Amino acid sequence: MNAPLPAHLLPAIEPREVPAALLDALKARFGERCSTALVVREQHGRDESSFTAPPPAAVVFAQSTADVSDAVRLCAEHRTPVIPFGVGSSLEGHLLAVQGGISLDLSRMNRVLAVDNDDLLVTLQPGVTRKQLNEEIKHTGLFFPIDPGADASLGGMCATRASGTNAVRYGTMRENVLALEVVTASGEVIRTGTKARKSSAGYDLTRLMVGSEGTLGIITEVTLRLYPLPEAISAAVCSFPSIAAAVRTTIQIIQLGIPIARVELIDGNTVRMVNQHAKLGLREEPLLLMEFHGSPASVKEQAEMVQELASGEGGQAFEWASTPEERTRLWTARHNAYFAALQSRPGCRVIATDTCVPISRLADAMLESVDEVKASGIPYFLLGHVGDGNFHFGYLIDPDNPEERRVAEGLNELLVQRSLRLGGTCTGEHGIGLHKMGFLVDEAGDGAVEMMRTLKRALDPHNILNPGKIFTL
Amino acid sequence: MNAPLPAHLLPAIEPREVPAALLDALKARFGERCSTALVVREQHGRDESSFTAPPPAAVVFAQSTADVSDAVRLCAEHRTPVIPFGVGSSLEGHLLAVQGGISLDLSRMNRVLAVDNDDLLVTLQPGVTRKQLNEEIKHTGLFFPIDPGADASLGGMCATRASGTNAVRYGTMRENVLALEVVTASGEVIRTGTKARKSSAGYDLTRLMVGSEGTLGIITEVTLRLYPLPEAISAAVCSFPSIAAAVRTTIQIIQLGIPIARVELIDGNTVRMVNQHAKLGLREEPLLLMEFHGSPASVKEQAEMVQELASGEGGQAFEWASTPEERTRLWTARHNAYFAALQSRPGCRVIATDTCVPISRLADAMLESVDEVKASGIPYFLLGHVGDGNFHFGYLIDPDNPEERRVAEGLNELLVQRSLRLGGTCTGEHGIGLHKMGFLVDEAGDGAVEMMRTLKRALDPHNILNPGKIFTL
Repeated sequence: MNAPLPAHLLPAIEPREVPAALLDALKARFGERCSTALVVREQHGRDESSFTAPPPAAVVFAQSTADVSDAVRLCAEHRTPVIPFGVGSSLEGHLLAVQGGISLDLSRMNRVLAVDNDDLLVTLQPGVTRKQLNEEIKHTGLFFPIDPGADASLGGMCATRASGTNAVRYGTMRENVLALEVVTASGEVIRTGTKARKSSAGYDLTRLMVGSEGTLGIITEVTLRLYPLPEAISAAVCSFPSIAAAVRTTIQIIQLGIPIARVELIDGNTVRMVNQHAKLGLREEPLLLMEFHGSPASVKEQAEMVQELASGEGGQAFEWASTPEERTRLWTARHNAYFAALQSRPGCRVIATDTCVPISRLADAMLESVDEVKASGIPYFLLGHVGDGNFHFGYLIDPDNPEERRVAEGLNELLVQRSLRLGGTCTGEHGIGLHKMGFLVDEAGDGAVEMMRTLKRALDPHNILNPGKIFTL
Repeated sequence: MNAPLPAHLLPAIEPREVPAALLDALKARFGERCSTALVVREQHGRDESSFTAPPPAAVVFAQSTADVSDAVRLCAEHRTPVIPFGVGSSLEGHLLAVQGGISLDLSRMNRVLAVDNDDLLVTLQPGVTRKQLNEEIKHTGLFFPIDPGADASLGGMCATRASGTNAVRYGTMRENVLALEVVTASGEVIRTGTKARKSSAGYDLTRLMVGSEGTLGIITEVTLRLYPLPEAISAAVCSFPSIAAAVRTTIQIIQLGIPIARVELIDGNTVRMVNQHAKLGLREEPLLLMEFHGSPASVKEQAEMVQELASGEGGQAFEWASTPEERTRLWTARHNAYFAALQSRPGCRVIATDTCVPISRLADAMLESVDEVKASGIPYFLLGHVGDGNFHFGYLIDPDNPEERRVAEGLNELLVQRSLRLGGTCTGEHGIGLHKMGFLVDEAGDGAVEMMRTLKRALDPHNILNPGKIFTL
């Protein structure tokens, strides 16, 4: 069971009453695709965050852009919040109906509309998940690299500006979304961007929508860049005597411009959890999990250079996984680290951190925080997309113990403030949601957050699009 | 002499009167750094576009963020337009005082503030030019790749979302600006972004400012990504029997994922102009000018693959330029193509096009347009950043002959509409400015342009920041 939202995170605004007339109108328009069943509402009123709020008043299942437009128009008429829902994998409370309203489920808008092999593009509906996409296009020799771990919907990944393990080479959603179709707060349908790889045609509405967490528009179609599947892929694991040594190796890889595709840190404590969960025999020391993409010669060259850098930092047991099966096993273990950690403390909930710092400050940001969490006695995991300077602690708290939550939130606060002092951000890829509103002000300053509020008021004058996320008005 | 702005491009709004009280206040604050001398005003009232407008009422030379803030505050008080000015290399009339007002010259804000070798970052003032930057950092082993040809200011390159020859590998300003300091329309100073490589912290104000052409804020500080100088660089020229063959070769390079750093097309007609201007002996046929970056082995591998693709399309005379001197000579010739073309018709002015299409449609977009310009009899040049699908015709018109301007604008209209039909954009890198406002509506649609206007009204309620560019209110 999730804990209730702590008082300091509760919005000052009372949930708005959802008018019966709106529910009637939605039922008239959507029939059985508008549900007020408690089980459906509850399922749409939570996410992977550790918070709860009362569920939305109804859930509408959209099947088309016209559905989204009509639902938004009706909500606008009745000044009622509408919260887009993909697969529910948000970690920051994005999906909670903290101001009441309607959940708009986009998961049935799950068609890949067009794969453009020649231009390395795909256009799809927002409910398509990343695994579904890669499955559907695998015969083309192309792939979509952004991999946040969870099998998130691509609409949701746009909304949170997601990234994950491949970002060090291929960038984040920011770099890989070319164009969007968006339903505005008045229910109008607009298009941002074209299929051209670059453009200077006016304000970058695509990038404004990417990362706006459903608060400026609802994404109904996405055009993404694809990449040729590399001719050769090789993965390797290397253990290090310390986190600092693993981080130093990573910094050298980046500074030399080695085009590594993935470089993930797992700390010794977390390796132990992964070993237990996945029956692996990895050395229970800090390790880097790496992947190289390119021509066979280039992959070999990259790997040799990295191996040399690693051994200069005391790295040992450089183990290769060259077959697809071995690679899948390793990466599945990495992706399941979250669940491995959950299982290590039955009944726990995770408070996940998401700071990202300039890579030269990574060891500073990480090591002091490791000392703090160890001193607190709260079990934790630690993973890092270290090539980008982004890492996640997961504090494994007993949800029935308010003291543990308080301590964990305090650890996160220390971590965020330290990362901001080092030139970093409070969130590399999860978004602000409910949890990091205060940190956003610390990071961006009052002036910039006020500019965000001004944009929100201009584009959503009745504050109906996922209100109470990123900031309160 | 430039031609006056054609009637269909003239904003419906009369230039606003600049109050004497504002000029007095600016002189009191800035002393000799506020000039009303006609020669200074005229120099700041034009750019590299082919249009003219009355000059601004005064020019203020800013030396600090506080200067910019104070100048904007005074202009805001007096509801007077303020137009940021870098080096004056805009091609789209961005610098013209079409609604009157003050030019704010940022060229004295030209200090590189901090080079961060470990994190591959640089922070600088907006008046630093790209060549100055690369000169100042060359001892670090790092470089900034974005190269629009002109030695533009980096503030201006942010404002137009510039790109150029290296974008196929390193991206555009969109991908390479990490953070900004911006003076808002009320004179407030805000910061967008951090030094972290990625972030999901709220709306992407950085990307909103990049490409906003001075209409949403004035950029006073820029943090950019740098790259390690490649261990090996090699350039090559290859002639082709037709533009189509050169384009097909390019498409294959991109589709195979070969990480080519530059791939520029120059048509035979333009090669002739370049030969005459730079005393080169290039074959006067369509050619690709290419550059490869990487380790010596990787550069060799890339070059071999490209050579094979080129010869499959009838490419011949693959000539290598491996020494820095040979490379510089080739790229200087490419960058001077604009001036070579100008000299080929003494007294002419250039109307430059800037369409960008999905790469598979490049030949379609280009070839019909070549036929049209040939049929028109207007001399022209044709260059392309073909790896991105972006290319430029330059129509060399007699500025005293209105008929030639009419015909050239008609050719551009045909080209833009064709590019939009093929999924492209009216501007890959020059921006909308004055010249492409109508095309922006054709491309983005009324709804998206109205959203841009809404953003502008929200952030600049008195319409003082470079008004009358991108759209009129």
